[in-house]
Amino acid sequence: MNLDYKNLDTLESYRRLTKLPRPAHLRTLVTVDRIASSSVPAGGGMTYNYGAKLFSPEILGALQDLADEAGLIAKYRRILDGGIMNTGEKRMVLHHLVRGRPGKETTHGGRDLRAFYRGEQDKIAVFADRVHRGEIRGSTGKPFDTVVQIGIGGSDLGPRALHIALSNLRAGDGPFRKMKARFVSNVDPDDAAEVLARVNPETSLFIVVSKSGTTQETLTNQAFVLRRLEEAGIPGLDPKKHLVAVTSETSPMAKSPDYLASFFIDDFIGGRYSATSAVGGAVLSLAFGPGVFEEVLAGAAEADRLALEGDIRRNAALMDALLGVYERNVLGFPATAVLPYSQALSRFPAHLQQLDMESNGKGVNRFGEALSYPTGPVIFGEPGTNGQHSFYQLLHQGTDIVPLQFIGFRESQRGEDLSFDGSTSQKKLNANLAAQILAFAKGKDDVDPNKSFGGNRPSSLLWGEKLTPRALGATLAHFENKVMFQGLAWNINSFDQEGVQLGKVLASEVLSGAPADRELAAYARLLGVL
Amino acid sequence: MNLDYKNLDTLESYRRLTKLPRPAHLRTLVTVDRIASSSVPAGGGMTYNYGAKLFSPEILGALQDLADEAGLIAKYRRILDGGIMNTGEKRMVLHHLVRGRPGKETTHGGRDLRAFYRGEQDKIAVFADRVHRGEIRGSTGKPFDTVVQIGIGGSDLGPRALHIALSNLRAGDGPFRKMKARFVSNVDPDDAAEVLARVNPETSLFIVVSKSGTTQETLTNQAFVLRRLEEAGIPGLDPKKHLVAVTSETSPMAKSPDYLASFFIDDFIGGRYSATSAVGGAVLSLAFGPGVFEEVLAGAAEADRLALEGDIRRNAALMDALLGVYERNVLGFPATAVLPYSQALSRFPAHLQQLDMESNGKGVNRFGEALSYPTGPVIFGEPGTNGQHSFYQLLHQGTDIVPLQFIGFRESQRGEDLSFDGSTSQKKLNANLAAQILAFAKGKDDVDPNKSFGGNRPSSLLWGEKLTPRALGATLAHFENKVMFQGLAWNINSFDQEGVQLGKVLASEVLSGAPADRELAAYARLLGVL
Repeated sequence: MNLDYKNLDTLESYRRLTKLPRPAHLRTLVTVDRIASSSVPAGGGMTYNYGAKLFSPEILGALQDLADEAGLIAKYRRILDGGIMNTGEKRMVLHHLVRGRPGKETTHGGRDLRAFYRGEQDKIAVFADRVHRGEIRGSTGKPFDTVVQIGIGGSDLGPRALHIALSNLRAGDGPFRKMKARFVSNVDPDDAAEVLARVNPETSLFIVVSKSGTTQETLTNQAFVLRRLEEAGIPGLDPKKHLVAVTSETSPMAKSPDYLASFFIDDFIGGRYSATSAVGGAVLSLAFGPGVFEEVLAGAAEADRLALEGDIRRNAALMDALLGVYERNVLGFPATAVLPYSQALSRFPAHLQQLDMESNGKGVNRFGEALSYPTGPVIFGEPGTNGQHSFYQLLHQGTDIVPLQFIGFRESQRGEDLSFDGSTSQKKLNANLAAQILAFAKGKDDVDPNKSFGGNRPSSLLWGEKLTPRALGATLAHFENKVMFQGLAWNINSFDQEGVQLGKVLASEVLSGAPADRELAAYARLLGVL
Repeated sequence: MNLDYKNLDTLESYRRLTKLPRPAHLRTLVTVDRIASSSVPAGGGMTYNYGAKLFSPEILGALQDLADEAGLIAKYRRILDGGIMNTGEKRMVLHHLVRGRPGKETTHGGRDLRAFYRGEQDKIAVFADRVHRGEIRGSTGKPFDTVVQIGIGGSDLGPRALHIALSNLRAGDGPFRKMKARFVSNVDPDDAAEVLARVNPETSLFIVVSKSGTTQETLTNQAFVLRRLEEAGIPGLDPKKHLVAVTSETSPMAKSPDYLASFFIDDFIGGRYSATSAVGGAVLSLAFGPGVFEEVLAGAAEADRLALEGDIRRNAALMDALLGVYERNVLGFPATAVLPYSQALSRFPAHLQQLDMESNGKGVNRFGEALSYPTGPVIFGEPGTNGQHSFYQLLHQGTDIVPLQFIGFRESQRGEDLSFDGSTSQKKLNANLAAQILAFAKGKDDVDPNKSFGGNRPSSLLWGEKLTPRALGATLAHFENKVMFQGLAWNINSFDQEGVQLGKVLASEVLSGAPADRELAAYARLLGVL
């Protein structure tokens, strides 16, 4: 068990990795045998295939050594067992615990935290069932048919992406959906106003989500909603009877008697890792029923267990992480694209953007020492085939190589399809996905250089039969664990976000009316704030 | 008038630029005077401010020399005058002509093309007015209340982004909105099925948009819609009486008698530059009225005229372009973030992603010769303040510097706001925007390195009073012209997209059932296509 924390570039295995011959061209490397032997189960029925990635057997060997030398699995276990792995803020990192208990019992203040998180989800389930049965109703006596999540960052992006991903699904007897869901995040008043113009206050339940209970945007939007509901002039409407809180027990929100119900998380659940906690649990259980959310949790828990495997060839998240480190630090690629061939995952890249860039966009190691190697890449993406008609030109022929994370499913979610021009839409979708992997890997020569494709652009494929709630949970956890392993390899703290503080402080100065900095005042005047 | 086409790295001014001392730290550079003297009108009431960019007077001088030596304005005039500037495809580049005539008369086959484009928009306006008055109705006699755009890439991203951007606006007597609008783009069958589940076939008008009339996704989705409408079993419903075409006059679609109406573009309007042509004109004129779309055109036309100015300090698009070239080629920054502080611009970054990356993600110059310098960067972004709670951590403290394009407005669109905690939401929004510009530029030292901000991260600000249709048109054209100038500086053809062809060919091979490549077949089998 190696729990030394060393910078990547001090590891013997890493130094060796940098000296290994670069892999041959993917045109040569990608063979039927390689594709077949490069599959790793990722949980929830998902499989991670790295057959079109840039590596040689020697490189994989060095990456295995790197995983061992850096003690990545031991450090993951340390997270699961309640180690203080958010070093800057001196906190445990317990998002895995909201969906299972893959490590030891973890307590805080004498309380078993697995039981705490599980208990909150049980409370949510009871509450959601009562809302669905019409036992809990709006203040004018009407059943709730809409839930509005008010939150920003991790309280918005993950839950929103998961909500879209589940919206098409149907059970045997009809849609999963039990309530419509809307989201308000931005402090831009047009955001809340637009959503409020489209919902019926009498039948809407608003979930206010802020761990600290002090998030400026969220408190402002809560006030916005309360004011608008009061001004609606609906006889008998009591806005506070339409508000639910998701917050920590120690926050100002938790002390308020103003909420119809309150569900709790704590400081050990980071915002960007909170989609499987009450932050996502409340809105998704209300929108689709608690049983659907349990499936998401089960898929995530399975991925978490699989991520304990020490052999990188049998650990999807670890392999994904290490190939990414090789691409970033040895091959020097500055960005990564996430390309789900599923419209249901249309906002999943936006969630991963936060998850990855906020976790690993760090310039110092876990001890606060400046790093001399690159850490987290820029993450971006849109669903295919849409992206093919947008930015794939640069991915194929641009001057920088961008590694690609494809995601795909054999079946559509709704199962409504037609055959046109000899094939179904779903087959067209996946024919394009297969074609892109090959086109990026192998390229194609042409006498016209403008029509030549250099290829050698690496990609991986995370795929499953169908985007079920369980597959979705596993996919979410796969990326959480990938990001965690990369952060550990880079020897950084992936669980704080000090880089967001300065802007908050300066914005407060502006709003106080007297910013100390003259140039800040100049920009504020330009924008009509001062 | 310099119409030599030389690679960037052969220009004397560029060589000098690379040898100039790097600018001082932005902490020193950004002064009140500099902010005040760095504003350039960008059209439509918008102003481009580059006060927080990395430059010295010498660098600006060299960039002016570069503009002159490369003949950027002369080449822009050549585009406006109908030069064959899409060299690979041997076509004129005439998107500016859909919104004005800033150059000479341009004809093709004896026809004045300005009159042709203008005539199509006039036809659209008459059609939209008749639909709005209920003179043109659905096949069962009900007035149309919904328009569904079926298109992908440029037929989707630009029109969709503009539609969202205009959706909050109101005239004195109520909302601009005259019809709801929906968009279907992805060949994933869940996309069309989800939209169709939400619209009433009897009152819906479907606009099928494909310049070539052969786009696989769009023809498939057209068939999907027709089939579903036929199967709906609504007495008297004739699906073909609900379809409108936007295509070129030579396309298979143009020859079909199946459309209720057809509006035309031609080969001189590139997909990603087509938002102000009939591609955006039809859906936006139907959704908001032709008068609103005319304002978008007027704003774009104004930006196009301003882009003719030879002095870079008075040409917003040119200055933006050249500072970007300096950042990309001399400072070596690989990506650019677009950060609108306006929820209404939530999908504008996705449009710019196509516009920029598909135009300038090229590895060969306009003569097909390989380039030895980087061209278009990765483009990504989300609206503020949302992005602050997502990926700004990396922007502030990550190991790569990402230049930032902020966009902001003094007023909200809806004007519905509240004062909470001493300030309105709009003031909070803009206080955050001002704060971010300063935080990125100046940073802040701290005894704890984890809480230190190195700063020196350059940004620009495109701002206006309010996001009106005119401001929106100018903002759109600003970026189109910026991308054009950068492509000219890099000596590439920004108007073709050969990089999207190989994937199409391979996808067709898969769908034919017998791909030549064994590895392609392996991936296709994995995904259930073969």
